[in-house]
Amino acid sequence: MKTLQDYIDKLNKLNFKEMYENDFFLTWEKTDDELEAVWTIADAFRFMRENNISTKVFESGLGISLFRDNSTRTRFSFASACNLLGLEVQDLDEGKSQVAHGETVRETANMISFMADVIGIRDDMYIGKGNAYMHEVSDAVKQGHADGILEQRPTLVSLQCDIDHPTQCMADMLHIIHHFGGVENLKGKKLAMSWAYSPSYGKPLSVPQGVVGLMTRMGMDVVLAHPEGYEIMPEVEEVAKKNASKSGGSFRVSHDMKDAFQDADIVYPKSWAPFAAMETRTDLYSKGDQAGIDELEKKLLAQNAEHKDWCCTEDLMKTTKDGKALYLHCLPADINGVSCEEGEVEASVFDRYRDPLYKEASYKPYVIAAMIFLSKFENPQEVLKKLEEQKTPRIFK
Amino acid sequence: MKTLQDYIDKLNKLNFKEMYENDFFLTWEKTDDELEAVWTIADAFRFMRENNISTKVFESGLGISLFRDNSTRTRFSFASACNLLGLEVQDLDEGKSQVAHGETVRETANMISFMADVIGIRDDMYIGKGNAYMHEVSDAVKQGHADGILEQRPTLVSLQCDIDHPTQCMADMLHIIHHFGGVENLKGKKLAMSWAYSPSYGKPLSVPQGVVGLMTRMGMDVVLAHPEGYEIMPEVEEVAKKNASKSGGSFRVSHDMKDAFQDADIVYPKSWAPFAAMETRTDLYSKGDQAGIDELEKKLLAQNAEHKDWCCTEDLMKTTKDGKALYLHCLPADINGVSCEEGEVEASVFDRYRDPLYKEASYKPYVIAAMIFLSKFENPQEVLKKLEEQKTPRIFK
Amino acid sequence: MKTLQDYIDKLNKLNFKEMYENDFFLTWEKTDDELEAVWTIADAFRFMRENNISTKVFESGLGISLFRDNSTRTRFSFASACNLLGLEVQDLDEGKSQVAHGETVRETANMISFMADVIGIRDDMYIGKGNAYMHEVSDAVKQGHADGILEQRPTLVSLQCDIDHPTQCMADMLHIIHHFGGVENLKGKKLAMSWAYSPSYGKPLSVPQGVVGLMTRMGMDVVLAHPEGYEIMPEVEEVAKKNASKSGGSFRVSHDMKDAFQDADIVYPKSWAPFAAMETRTDLYSKGDQAGIDELEKKLLAQNAEHKDWCCTEDLMKTTKDGKALYLHCLPADINGVSCEEGEVEASVFDRYRDPLYKEASYKPYVIAAMIFLSKFENPQEVLKKLEEQKTPRIFK
Repeated sequence: MKTLQDYIDKLNKLNFKEMYENDFFLTWEKTDDELEAVWTIADAFRFMRENNISTKVFESGLGISLFRDNSTRTRFSFASACNLLGLEVQDLDEGKSQVAHGETVRETANMISFMADVIGIRDDMYIGKGNAYMHEVSDAVKQGHADGILEQRPTLVSLQCDIDHPTQCMADMLHIIHHFGGVENLKGKKLAMSWAYSPSYGKPLSVPQGVVGLMTRMGMDVVLAHPEGYEIMPEVEEVAKKNASKSGGSFRVSHDMKDAFQDADIVYPKSWAPFAAMETRTDLYSKGDQAGIDELEKKLLAQNAEHKDWCCTEDLMKTTKDGKALYLHCLPADINGVSCEEGEVEASVFDRYRDPLYKEASYKPYVIAAMIFLSKFENPQEVLKKLEEQKTPRIFK
Repeated sequence: MKTLQDYIDKLNKLNFKEMYENDFFLTWEKTDDELEAVWTIADAFRFMRENNISTKVFESGLGISLFRDNSTRTRFSFASACNLLGLEVQDLDEGKSQVAHGETVRETANMISFMADVIGIRDDMYIGKGNAYMHEVSDAVKQGHADGILEQRPTLVSLQCDIDHPTQCMADMLHIIHHFGGVENLKGKKLAMSWAYSPSYGKPLSVPQGVVGLMTRMGMDVVLAHPEGYEIMPEVEEVAKKNASKSGGSFRVSHDMKDAFQDADIVYPKSWAPFAAMETRTDLYSKGDQAGIDELEKKLLAQNAEHKDWCCTEDLMKTTKDGKALYLHCLPADINGVSCEEGEVEASVFDRYRDPLYKEASYKPYVIAAMIFLSKFENPQEVLKKLEEQKTPRIFK
Repeated sequence: MKTLQDYIDKLNKLNFKEMYENDFFLTWEKTDDELEAVWTIADAFRFMRENNISTKVFESGLGISLFRDNSTRTRFSFASACNLLGLEVQDLDEGKSQVAHGETVRETANMISFMADVIGIRDDMYIGKGNAYMHEVSDAVKQGHADGILEQRPTLVSLQCDIDHPTQCMADMLHIIHHFGGVENLKGKKLAMSWAYSPSYGKPLSVPQGVVGLMTRMGMDVVLAHPEGYEIMPEVEEVAKKNASKSGGSFRVSHDMKDAFQDADIVYPKSWAPFAAMETRTDLYSKGDQAGIDELEKKLLAQNAEHKDWCCTEDLMKTTKDGKALYLHCLPADINGVSCEEGEVEASVFDRYRDPLYKEASYKPYVIAAMIFLSKFENPQEVLKKLEEQKTPRIFK
């Protein structure tokens, strides 16, 4: 696209009315048009930044970030997105503890939201909890707005829950789209979302789940590969199957990394914890059973260690399409001989893909900003047009 | 009020000259006109926000927050107020330790204030210290400005000291004013500021003190109720008495919660620590006498436990005016069976008042913004007028 | 100077082209013209602030601060500088640990910089590491920008490394320039950068090194005084010697505080750790040798204690030029009987200089803002002119 009008023209063809005054939890709760709108606006924002056109649409307002897990990357992405639009970030640190639910959530959510236009939450630690918690917060502030407590309805952007990691996967997909020159070129491409060995345990399931839940919508042949015992949530597998059948692609599970990589156009090798084990861990945490948690950790590490051969090696990469599959990762990766002795990927593979990997990550702030923007403006095309006409430079000229 | 001009007209009738370039420590250091100006501007800001008129009056500038105690609510209220005016918040975390006084305060105060337009301090932990510390900081930056070190004089807003909690009580009062349809309707109303049982000990005295110090100014009949031994600072009782006699209301102390609630229009049941005990605790802390502190805690908890019947029950609420007194709390409350086994209030009572309680809290950011605004502009009416004429939308249109 | 045009005229005579899109690590890597440009713009910004002219040049953008050591003053100075220009600060806390180098740095640097216009780093703890780390970060984001990952190149401002403390020393020098009425009046002035006793150990060398590396450029007679064994980095002594010979001043090392103070126009008495000991400490840390570190600390404290007579006393001050040398310190100082029993300076001396000391510190935010500004605008004079013509007030009028 060459001008901002091109992005606006594209938006004019899409139906995304329902995104106004709405939240973003799971990609599969959104229509294809709605996802397309996010990518289009993300690209438009990047275009505007490259051309020194300010995208500031708020004179004041807060973006509340609520991280229930440490995060440098996502924190900076959310802060960048808010800043791009004119919102100031305020962090609410609740620590890793499982906060109380119910009325306490309702109260806190309202107390921090008097000037909040958006709330970004990362809560991926406990199976069955993160997404539910986000809905509680959203419902609370929605009601607070209806009751006249809040002047505005703060919309919610999930920055990773126990089920999906929408901002990550949407950024991954935008990277894929640009790499292959458009959504229309993705039909029939093979994508391998594969488990890989890591010396740490308990990595969230939201990335592999988010990937198969999203990537199956573009007519691609998606293979989810993992050793037996590393199943993801069955509900998400169902989503992937339905998506694939609807989009004219395919989805299957394999227990063989080689099989998944064979002739793949895109590979996403990454460690995660078994769904069942994560459920057990959630129970143990809620009981405060530290001995049980330690026992589980030991068991999981031993289980992981049986699959050290699940590594993205040069040899494996050679078996992909022309030996040049697009390698993806949400970062940071466990790199052999760099961040660990044995891990998810060989150093020479990872090094060859550093530039594309960083580019992949660089879409995230724009994707988040687009999600916020779509939830706040009924007619985003008009706002983009006015921003262009107004011509306020981002950096003074 | 229907237009911004209505608020401006009201301000034109008030004398609040002394607030310009001045601090806000205690409500009873301010005239009735000055308090009225705060409420009027708070309402004007809310009106402007509801009508998407930007209230940004600073292109750059910092609001420094200095919390000597953990606080989510007050922190977010201060951040919201600063953001509303265009100031960026920078937190100075000094921990809970009693920082050194004298020249060290003078130095730190200046070092953090080069670009500071306002400093918000919460220091309520130690009797005889918090308010004094705020004055030291204020004096230091005042002198720094006079000496040419600081380009501007950072004004100070107390976000709670050992004596008063002005931003809370001013928000409480604005809530009362709106509830009863105007200050003029408060004469003769009965307000019960009552101690209530809590399983924790050592809650600050600043709320009950602030309430009786402020609410006695409106011609209301204010009853301060608590078990014997839970006295507040005698100086503040004196303030309340004088206020009541001047305003044509009344002030009395009762040791019977039922007596206080009988026919009350407004009830504010809340736990606090005995003044004398807090004085002792301050001494023990300054001596570093941990054994003494533990001993005191044990004693105070036992003392509290003798008064578990001081709870805001449904039965008690029935005895208030038409059984429908306005229930107030600064939040979070100790709710029976929710946040504790036995506490300040029965769950069904609290639940019935959630909406009004959140509304009550929602005034705080506006009250803080109004206090900052009045200290920064010599002619606030003119600024409001110009903001309206300028018509910059808060959210891009 | 009386008008903004005066500052612009001065800038027009200077060559500082190389500062555009460039970093600020060490003062001696910059030409005299470049340093002069920093001071001129710092003064221009102060003039503009005093005259309520907004210096906001960014509509959006982040200033990333990365502190590898606790810091209130520098943190607030950096935040103030960013705020003055319209950048929002995001802190990256890495703790005091020595983070990994190489590709990990490259990755993190890019991940936090998608919207970053400037990165401020303080890393002064480990000899041979801080400056090197900053270069790694700078190289990483430079490459990230070249590779199309980052839309802009984030420039780097050293907020203190193991070698130099450029923002401090540049602020010190601006204070000296104003005190003596211009750079042209500094020729032949005597400056004593002297070690002084402190009960703590291991204070960074960057201040004394930065001072002798910068102050020798103005034709002053600079004496570096310290007890034997408290040598600074030999490379920096070489820099000071060359500077002095080029500027027509002088540089010598003395082991006698009295000798250094005799007839001095400026004195800078301050504790620091021996260079050799800091090198040893860095090695011990990298080996994780806690026993060795404890041993070293004990040894250094004992060594310090032999030099308690190295104190800036009233008697010593009397020996300076007319008994009225300008006393400098980067703050906080170890003041006898105030912050410690015996320390760097007598309380009565320090107290007499409080106002000038705070004024000295007040230049730092402006110096940092000037450094950022020069790295971001190819024609700063034009930008200043336009800001003046635009006449946006910092505080609404």
